[in-house]
This record gives sequence, C-alpha cells and structure tokens, in this order.
Amino acid sequence: MKIGLVGATGYTGVELLRLLAQHPRRPEVAVVTSRQEAGRALAEVFPGLAGLANYDRLVFEDPEQAAGRAELFFLAAPHGAALTLAPALLESGAKVIDLSADFRLKDPHVFAEWYQPHPAPGLLAEAVYGLPEIRAEAIGRARLVANPGCYPTSVILGLAPLVKAGLAGGDWPVIVDAVSGVTGAGRGALLGTAFCEVAEGFKAYKVVGHRHIPEMEQELSALAGRPLTVAFTPHLAPFNRGLLSTIYLRPSSFPAAEEFRALYLDFYKSAPFVRVRPEGFEPSTAQVRGANFCDLGLFPDPHSGLVKIISAIDNLCRGASGQALANFNLLNGWDETEGLNLAPMTY
Amino acid sequence: MKIGLVGATGYTGVELLRLLAQHPRRPEVAVVTSRQEAGRALAEVFPGLAGLANYDRLVFEDPEQAAGRAELFFLAAPHGAALTLAPALLESGAKVIDLSADFRLKDPHVFAEWYQPHPAPGLLAEAVYGLPEIRAEAIGRARLVANPGCYPTSVILGLAPLVKAGLAGGDWPVIVDAVSGVTGAGRGALLGTAFCEVAEGFKAYKVVGHRHIPEMEQELSALAGRPLTVAFTPHLAPFNRGLLSTIYLRPSSFPAAEEFRALYLDFYKSAPFVRVRPEGFEPSTAQVRGANFCDLGLFPDPHSGLVKIISAIDNLCRGASGQALANFNLLNGWDETEGLNLAPMTY
Amino acid sequence: MKIGLVGATGYTGVELLRLLAQHPRRPEVAVVTSRQEAGRALAEVFPGLAGLANYDRLVFEDPEQAAGRAELFFLAAPHGAALTLAPALLESGAKVIDLSADFRLKDPHVFAEWYQPHPAPGLLAEAVYGLPEIRAEAIGRARLVANPGCYPTSVILGLAPLVKAGLAGGDWPVIVDAVSGVTGAGRGALLGTAFCEVAEGFKAYKVVGHRHIPEMEQELSALAGRPLTVAFTPHLAPFNRGLLSTIYLRPSSFPAAEEFRALYLDFYKSAPFVRVRPEGFEPSTAQVRGANFCDLGLFPDPHSGLVKIISAIDNLCRGASGQALANFNLLNGWDETEGLNLAPMTY
Amino acid sequence: MKIGLVGATGYTGVELLRLLAQHPRRPEVAVVTSRQEAGRALAEVFPGLAGLANYDRLVFEDPEQAAGRAELFFLAAPHGAALTLAPALLESGAKVIDLSADFRLKDPHVFAEWYQPHPAPGLLAEAVYGLPEIRAEAIGRARLVANPGCYPTSVILGLAPLVKAGLAGGDWPVIVDAVSGVTGAGRGALLGTAFCEVAEGFKAYKVVGHRHIPEMEQELSALAGRPLTVAFTPHLAPFNRGLLSTIYLRPSSFPAAEEFRALYLDFYKSAPFVRVRPEGFEPSTAQVRGANFCDLGLFPDPHSGLVKIISAIDNLCRGASGQALANFNLLNGWDETEGLNLAPMTY
Repeated sequence: MKIGLVGATGYTGVELLRLLAQHPRRPEVAVVTSRQEAGRALAEVFPGLAGLANYDRLVFEDPEQAAGRAELFFLAAPHGAALTLAPALLESGAKVIDLSADFRLKDPHVFAEWYQPHPAPGLLAEAVYGLPEIRAEAIGRARLVANPGCYPTSVILGLAPLVKAGLAGGDWPVIVDAVSGVTGAGRGALLGTAFCEVAEGFKAYKVVGHRHIPEMEQELSALAGRPLTVAFTPHLAPFNRGLLSTIYLRPSSFPAAEEFRALYLDFYKSAPFVRVRPEGFEPSTAQVRGANFCDLGLFPDPHSGLVKIISAIDNLCRGASGQALANFNLLNGWDETEGLNLAPMTY
Repeated sequence: MKIGLVGATGYTGVELLRLLAQHPRRPEVAVVTSRQEAGRALAEVFPGLAGLANYDRLVFEDPEQAAGRAELFFLAAPHGAALTLAPALLESGAKVIDLSADFRLKDPHVFAEWYQPHPAPGLLAEAVYGLPEIRAEAIGRARLVANPGCYPTSVILGLAPLVKAGLAGGDWPVIVDAVSGVTGAGRGALLGTAFCEVAEGFKAYKVVGHRHIPEMEQELSALAGRPLTVAFTPHLAPFNRGLLSTIYLRPSSFPAAEEFRALYLDFYKSAPFVRVRPEGFEPSTAQVRGANFCDLGLFPDPHSGLVKIISAIDNLCRGASGQALANFNLLNGWDETEGLNLAPMTY
Repeated sequence: MKIGLVGATGYTGVELLRLLAQHPRRPEVAVVTSRQEAGRALAEVFPGLAGLANYDRLVFEDPEQAAGRAELFFLAAPHGAALTLAPALLESGAKVIDLSADFRLKDPHVFAEWYQPHPAPGLLAEAVYGLPEIRAEAIGRARLVANPGCYPTSVILGLAPLVKAGLAGGDWPVIVDAVSGVTGAGRGALLGTAFCEVAEGFKAYKVVGHRHIPEMEQELSALAGRPLTVAFTPHLAPFNRGLLSTIYLRPSSFPAAEEFRALYLDFYKSAPFVRVRPEGFEPSTAQVRGANFCDLGLFPDPHSGLVKIISAIDNLCRGASGQALANFNLLNGWDETEGLNLAPMTY
Repeated sequence: MKIGLVGATGYTGVELLRLLAQHPRRPEVAVVTSRQEAGRALAEVFPGLAGLANYDRLVFEDPEQAAGRAELFFLAAPHGAALTLAPALLESGAKVIDLSADFRLKDPHVFAEWYQPHPAPGLLAEAVYGLPEIRAEAIGRARLVANPGCYPTSVILGLAPLVKAGLAGGDWPVIVDAVSGVTGAGRGALLGTAFCEVAEGFKAYKVVGHRHIPEMEQELSALAGRPLTVAFTPHLAPFNRGLLSTIYLRPSSFPAAEEFRALYLDFYKSAPFVRVRPEGFEPSTAQVRGANFCDLGLFPDPHSGLVKIISAIDNLCRGASGQALANFNLLNGWDETEGLNLAPMTY
C-alpha cells in the first residue's frame, strides 16, 4: 500500500515517519511533500531517519506533485492548507487523514466563528472525527478522517465516561488546565520557541479563546446530550513531548471512588490505548512518552466537591501522529494497535 | 547585626546565603547549622559560595549550638523542627523568621487536623503571617514571623484585591492549578526527584489534600470576611525554580477588563514587588527567576463566565528566602527592598 | 524462547524491557529479579510498561530465584554482582549476556589492577567482548558475552578503521573527551544525580582513572597490534540519554578527507548500525536517541595536525541494552537488526 | 555617569542591563539601541526588567542616535558592527567597551585571514584586550577595550600560569574541548537553536576553524613567548548559561600536584574572580551561574602523561557582560569587583 505525507517537515510529519518505519505491514511512503524543503533529501533534513525503510531514497516535493501518487494521504500541513488540499486528493480517489483542525468541527457556523467560512461544508459534514475509542466503526468506513487535536484528545478521553453517564452537572463550566511540551508549538524559526526563551520557564498562553475549545465542546456536548462549556487554559513547559490535562468538574452527584473508577474501566474495557490507573496513581507524561497510550488518574475531592481527572498523553504520538496511525489501521481494516504496541521511553 | 541560619543545607538555606551575600547592610551570618553536615565547611558543601562574604570561615554546626549566637534566626529546617526550636530561640531573646509551616495557621484545631497537635499554641497565636503586602506593619513589630508557603504566596497575592473587594462569589470553590520547579521538593537523595525521573516529564502530585490548602483558605477567608474553599492541584515541572498558579474564580459580578485591572493597580500601588501586568500579558516564571517579584496577569473570560488570574513567582526567592529577607528588612525597620532590588535572570 | 533479566530495575533493565516488548520474535520474559523491589509488580515499579507484552503478570523476585527459569539471562546488575551470578547461571546451562564490566577485560592482572582479583579467570578468558561490528562471529558461538561499556562502544567504533589501518601514530595518547546523559550514572536515590544538582549544569567527573580506560585500551591495542594509551575525560550533561565522544588523534600520516572517509565506509560497509556521516556532518545525540545507531563524523584538522572523530550513540540503547539485544540476536542466529530497526526519537 | 548600550537586545545586552541594575555606583543607562526593536519600550521587550533602575523610561533607539548621549558605550552588537561604530563613538569623545571580536586580534593580517580586511588597523593596535587578570593596568588607561570572547576567557585563564611558566611543551597543540550553553549562540529566531532542536541533545559545532582560535593563540603565545597552536572543538549543550573547557596539555616537565596548584595559586593570588579549586575538585558550570567567577580544577594525569585543566565560567557573565563590567570598573578607577560580588545561582 502506497501512502503520501503532505507537509512532512513539521514535528507531526517526522513523528509519522518514525512510526511508519516500524509498522509491521511496511506501508510504502511513496511521496513526501514540503513547500519549504522541496528538492532536499529527506535524510538531509532529518538525518536521524537515515538508513531506515526507504527513506534514503525520498526527496521532498511540492505538494502539487502529490495527487495520484498514493492511495492514502496523511496531511500534516499547517492549519488551513487542507481546506483545498483534502478535496483535491479525495477527488483523485485517495483517502485522507487530516491532522489539522480543518475538518474537525461539524457546524459550519462554529467553524466560521473560530476560523473562517469553510469552503467545503459538505466535506465538513462527511469527515469523521477520528477518536477511535468513540468512533472506531465510522472511522473504518471513512474517506476523510479529521484527526483530533492534542488537547481535545486528552480532555475527551478524560471526560467521556463521566459525561456519557450524565454526571456533568449544573451550570458550571468544565475547567481544563493543561500543559504541553514545546513540540506542540510546531517546528520553525521563531523567537518565542527558541531554547533560551523556553528553558527553565513556564507560562500560560492563549489564556482566552484557544481554538481547541469548540472542538472539546462539540464532542463533550455530543456525549452529554446537552451543551457543555469548557474553560480552558493551555501552558507551555520546557520539554519536547508530553501533554497533561488536569480537569475539574462539579458532578451532579458525587461518586464514590470505586464507582467512579468502575465507570471508566467499563467504558474503556476494549480500548487498548487507554490505561485507567489505580486509585491514587498520578499520571506523568514520562509514562507515555513516545507511545500511544492515554493514562487517566481519577481523584474525587470531597473537600472542594469537585472531581479531578488527570489525563496524560504524548502530544506528538497519541495527540497527533500515533492517533493518525491508529486511524490508518482502522481505515485498512487492521487491528488498531498494529505498529503502535510501543513501550514508552520513560527515561 | 548577627544572624543565624538553622537548617542551612536545603535549597531555601542556600538561597538565603546567596541573597545575604549581596545585602547592602552586610548582616553577619554568625552561625549556620545542619544536623547532617555538622563539621563540614560551608564552602565545601556549597562550593558556589566560596569567596563570598565571610562564608569561607563558616562551618556547619549542630542546631543545639545556635542559641545565643545571633539576634535573629532564620529557620529553614524541615517542617516540624521549628515547633521546638522557635520557642527556645525566642526565649533566648532572639527574633525568629520561620520558613516552615509550623506557625502559619492561626487556629490550633486546623493545625491539628492537617499536622499534629501544636505544642505552642500561644506562639501560634502570636506569630505574624509574613506576607508584606498585607501585613507589613505587624511584621515590623513581630518577634516571630511565619514566612508564607510558596504556593500560598502566589495564590494570596493573585486573589487578594478581588477577594477583598467582595467579588469571590457564590458557593463555588476557588480553583488553583499550580506548577512548581523541582527545588520546591527539597534537597535530598530521593529517587522521586532524581534527574531522570523528572526531566522531560510533567505530573500532578498530592492531588487531594495538599497541606498548603488550609493556609490559603485562612488568608483568603480573612480577606473575604467569610469562609472560602480552595480546590488545589500542584504539579511538578522539569526546571529548578519557578512557580506559576493559574487561578479560576467565578465572580459575583463579572468585571470589565479595565475595572478588574484598576482594582489590582490600586491594591498594589505601594507594593514594590508586585507587578500588575498589562492587559493580555502572560506571566512566565522566567521573568521572575532569581528575583522577589510576583507577576500578575488578569484575564476575564466571558466565554466561561470565570476570571482567570495568573500569578508567577520564583518559589525559592519570593516564595521562601526572598520573602524572608523582606520580612527581615521590615523587622529591622529598613526598607522592604534592601538587598532585594534584584533583576531576574530571565536567561 | 524464555529469557530472564537479573537486576531489572536499573535504567538498562527497563530499557531492555522496552526493547523486548517490540521484538518481532516475541521472546518471553520469564523472570525479572531485583533485590530491592522483590515482591513488587513490574508495572507498579515501571508504570510506563503496563499493558505491554506479558509485563502485567511479572513480579520482581530475588536473583536467587532466577537459575533454571530461562535459557538466556541478561545481567543488568551493578558491577561485581555478575562475578558470582554469571558462573552459577552458566552452570545451570543457560547463556549469559552480562551488561556489567565484570567480564570485559581479558587480562586478569589488568582486571585486578582496576577492580579486584577476578574469581573466575577461566570465564574471563572465555567471555566474548560483544561488539558486533568487530566480533559478530565469535558472539554467535558464545556462552558468555561481555556487553561493552557505553563510552568504549562509542570510542572503539569511532577509531577502529583508523587504528586497524595503522594510522594511530607516534607516542601520543589518543584523547577522548566524552559526554554522557544522566541515565549513565544509574538509577537510585543519590544527591549527586538529583534534578536540581544536575539541571542547567555541566561538569567533568572521574577526570583521572575512569574504569572504562583499560577496556578502550584493550580493544584499541588489539586492533592496532601495539599498545595504545587513552587519555579520557567523561562529563555529565543535563539530559537523560545520549553519549558523544570527541576523539583527537595525531595520525602517522595526515589523510585527505576522502581517503579518511573511504576507510570508514569500507570498514563499516556491512554494519547496519554504524552511520558514517557525510563530510562536515556534526553528529548529535538527538539523531540517535532511542535507537541502536552509532553516528560518526570525521574531521581532519590541518591547523592542528590532528584528526577529530565525533561518535554519538544512545548510551542506554546502543551503549547498553540495544547492543545486548543485538548480541542476543547473534547468539540465536537471527539477524542482528531484529527488533532494533528503530527510528530515533529525535524530538 | 551616563552610559550607552548599543545592540542591547541580544543576550549579552540584557545581561548587562541585569548587572547594571545592581551596580552600587548606579551608573545611568542613558541610551539603549537596537535596530530591530527601535521604538519599543525596553520593558516591553524584556518584561523581566520592568520596575528596575530607570528601565521603565527607556525606549530602544536606532544606533545612529547614540553618539554624544553617553560618556561610555558598551557595544553588544553582532560581530562586524563595531568596525564602524566604535571609531565614530571614540571620535565623539566617549570610551568604548566592545563585546564583539572586532578589536580583539592585534595582527591585521590574522584579522583579515579569519574575518575581513580591518578598516581601522590603528584602533586594532590601540585596543586593549580586556582580560583583567592579565592586563588590569592597561585596561585602566584604555579608550577602547576589546572584551574577550567567552571560550578564550575560560581557556586563557585556565592556561596562563602554566604557559607563563614555560611548561607548554614540545610540538603538540594544546587541545581544548569546550561546551557552551545555548545563550552562546545568540538571541534570534533560528531553527538551529529552537527548543526542540536543542533539548535532550548534545553536539559539536564548527569542529574545524572556529573563530575563537586565533584569539586564544594570540594571547597564549604572548604569555608563552613563542607560538602555540590550539586544537579547539566547541559543543552545544542544552542549558541556558555556562561554559566549561577541558584542556589537555603535554607539559615539558610533568609537575607534582602540589607544585602545579602552587603555580596557579600564586599567579591568581590577587585575582578576586578566579577560584583555584582544591585537589580533585571538579568544577561545574552550576557553581558559577550568574556570577563572575572562573573556577579552575587541575588534574595531572600520569597515565597519559598529560595535564588536564578544567575551567568553568558563566558564558554570559564572566564570558561577556560581567567581564565588560569589570573592565568598566577598571576604566573608572573603581575596584574591579564593584557590582560583581554576586553569589552564583547554583540552583
């Protein structure tokens, strides 16, 4: 099977190449594109990948060269690029897994409010939001998969059982305080992500109005069967990979610790990538680094009347390229875990 | 003026020595104690301090050797040690600034609930909670100052103007999601704070029941004039210094951005160490590293109906030893800023 | 095939478990030992490994329980422990790959000089020094493989072609200036490797007389056919994984850049894990992180009359457990690369 | 006294501002220039400096606005800019301390070989190489001080006593293997110094022909009284500040450890910023972070016949702005240490 990577010089692109090199079905990467690096050898831009798979033979091309060269495309291009790329590639008969936000929101009005008018509302309606734990079957039949954002992945997995059970109570927002490693900010020559601007520091960013909010609200509201509001604050921490969300929710009825956990164990009983951790376990991004797991820690807090849920993923793997590969497996009718039974590199 | 340092081999102790070496009044460190390092030269244990002040002549002694050797003692010993040390030193006629939690809670029942029965409830009542922005005058007259905890310092400074103005509304808890560098975990041979266990990772810890909660609730309730509840989650991030609290509060009435900021500017108009930042400014621990500032960012979030306040300090400086030095200045009738006009080492 | 891990709670042990979980031949880990953690579940000590292979069923046992439970043992115990463990396990009919220094030196006098009198000099003679690029065939027939040290691996691979060609000239020592990540210091509760003692710092250690010197000299002298002396300085840098050696050598005749590189390309033409990099390429530990590659950069420096060779590996993977797995493959008659075609996790 | 900072938005510029804010003589920063940030408030570009000295009133201006506004200028501009700026400012009657390499080499032919033909060879001859331990008197009388490079500072201080004593022997080069933090690479939007390209990695750079070589050779040859050659390899490590050089030298006669140390203690007996460390002490960049010290560790290595010297500084402070401030003090006839008695921020 031939696959193509569009926008392969960002961190999600190189993570896809890392994961694909170890996939047991050996899908062939037939084309890699990058507007910026067109003409340069893949192994020159990413020397770590030299000598693996067929990568020594690949040269970056312009994205216009991609159509017709593969049966399935991963789009790892900057937000906005897929709006025109995805339709063209679908028309050529290929399937598309888009890692951007371009096809994640179902409601074109919401999309317009947070981004711009959507040029392909029909595809917006058709695209399947690619969270395997919730929509494995639809993903398997999809032409176009909208791969979830990193923050939404951690938050939706962290809340789904509770919200689905109708425990998200009252008129208060769900509060999500989240932290990402610096790969989440993308690859590029920017002062703001220069080593010395980030190392030994910690800060919140986009404190009001981060664009992952409508994505979380869409999926959580769908699970709850009624509109839920999210108060979201992302932070940047000085490490490469990892994303941890600490979620605060006032439940309509306060659960006993065992019930609470039972709810999660049941919801995720067939989910190979969600690890519902034992009571008192404090998830850490280190325990999922390089792997496709989502680790969940559950903490009822009687003192404040809230429940706290801690959800840890690797933002590049489970939060982007690993999840894309799981979707790729499902699209092909393979087991979701093929090529993704990776042990975390905790140290 | 002669001063003594009890428990000088932790990170707050060595930070005090760093700051004292640059104090323009040149207070003489007459005695340094450490049960563990007794008999070793200070410059052998902390070679970075060699050649500064009188430090090359100091040798660690047992804490029992301290009484009578100085007019004022900083107690930087582990929690619990000051319960017996402070009374003895006060009796010898010295003043005491205690950096532990041993004298921070006013109510002996609350103290007993979170720690153990307090052996000196009279001193508990007498001790002044040493947050200069709120209690400068009382600090100036105190014999015993209870230096605030690092998390409470950031949270109380972050909320005081709002809470004092009666804007902490309704029945919801104040939510505090906070992050500390690893110096906050203390100095010692522990697997949990080994480099490879911490680097490139991020985790919450003590998710339920952290002992800084009653301290925050005591001070915030006093400011509010009614009981306030805090939901608090501390996290550990891979850097040495820095503490950032992201605070969520549902106000009784939603403030306009300018009013909100005006409230803070007014409350802190004579506070040299609090920087109320301009609209949209996202505080970072890097901007306060090594300095005594508390940086505040204010974010009304109409989407969720909450206000978010971001408060950044250096946990070792403003959150411990710098604050202790400000209290030391006030106790001596000097300007609060002497020796503390330090530019942050942002890079 | 059943395998056993003795001393599985160090960083090399957990790295072996990471790699074995992804090995396509699915060798069964039948027993894991740890004196310190005996009785605890593997997934409790290393929660990152939960849900992988058969690891949820493994419980650490005392090393005395190991014999007879597996056909092959990896010994990842502290130096000295294998001196008695290896003979016992060999006697039970198992094969042994020892990751310590206990069987690396051929000459018992040299061993005694740097360590202690060797209790099993016969095994010392029998053990095969497990550097696949140099001794693949002997490894395939071995009962006991002495897995090379991390620094020697990088240095011997960096110098072998030059030294073998007789170009190590004159009476000057080979100078090796090397840097390791903190996993190289082992896993444990030590003040010296506490996060705050290491982060944002850089230092040399064991500047004179590091125990990897005789190992390097033994192998380089064997390749040269005459005694070579090594001047070696290891350094500790604030990252988890990675080892980079900068090697200075005065060649007997100064090579042209192309000849120099041709020598290496030829020597390593069948070596899947050595990447001789193009002219001017500066190897980085990031390019080999998590993988089994050794990256070599070659720099003739006419200004000083020296050649510089830069050799980068992952100290835990290529420098320990990955190399052990390559030796395991060779011992089993499998391709050296099985389970080791890992793409580096550069970011 | 009024001073000006030209090129104040690099890391050395902001370090100067940090140090000047704490200088007891309170020199007034009258003008700060930055071509890139002209028109922006200093505290907007460097929010960490808000509220200190007169910095809230400063706005970046074009460098053309600088002349005549101050009695002394620090030039912290990119290499090359001082070639024309320095002559103009000197002509206006001001003194100049140049932090670039533009006036460090005495020989215009050497300058031309490594850079370009020098437009002001007269000033090149006049400029004083500003290493206080070697040239304090000349600095005190200078109009133009060429502030040494960071690597040369560590290397010259590390070798001066030995070389001066005639112990640099034979025909072998001095070998310098050195490591710098990322601030050494300058402040800017560059992919190569992006956080994720640098964190958790380690690499050599400019392995052949780094421009600090002629500066080291010039000063060491002058001390030796005969030409010395340096083989130099710089490395980049993932921390903000710090520079450590490991120096290898074959002495003409091998010194006893005590003699060796006595030589250094004597040479630096009046040098407040050089700490000749006790036998066996392994200097670390953490012990000098934020301070103006140079820490030296001395290691005769009989095994290899070499002596190893380890020299640690803070590249931004002692290696640039701290040294510039010491030169500023000397130029003003003040004690070299004014404003520089800073305790390192080890943690």
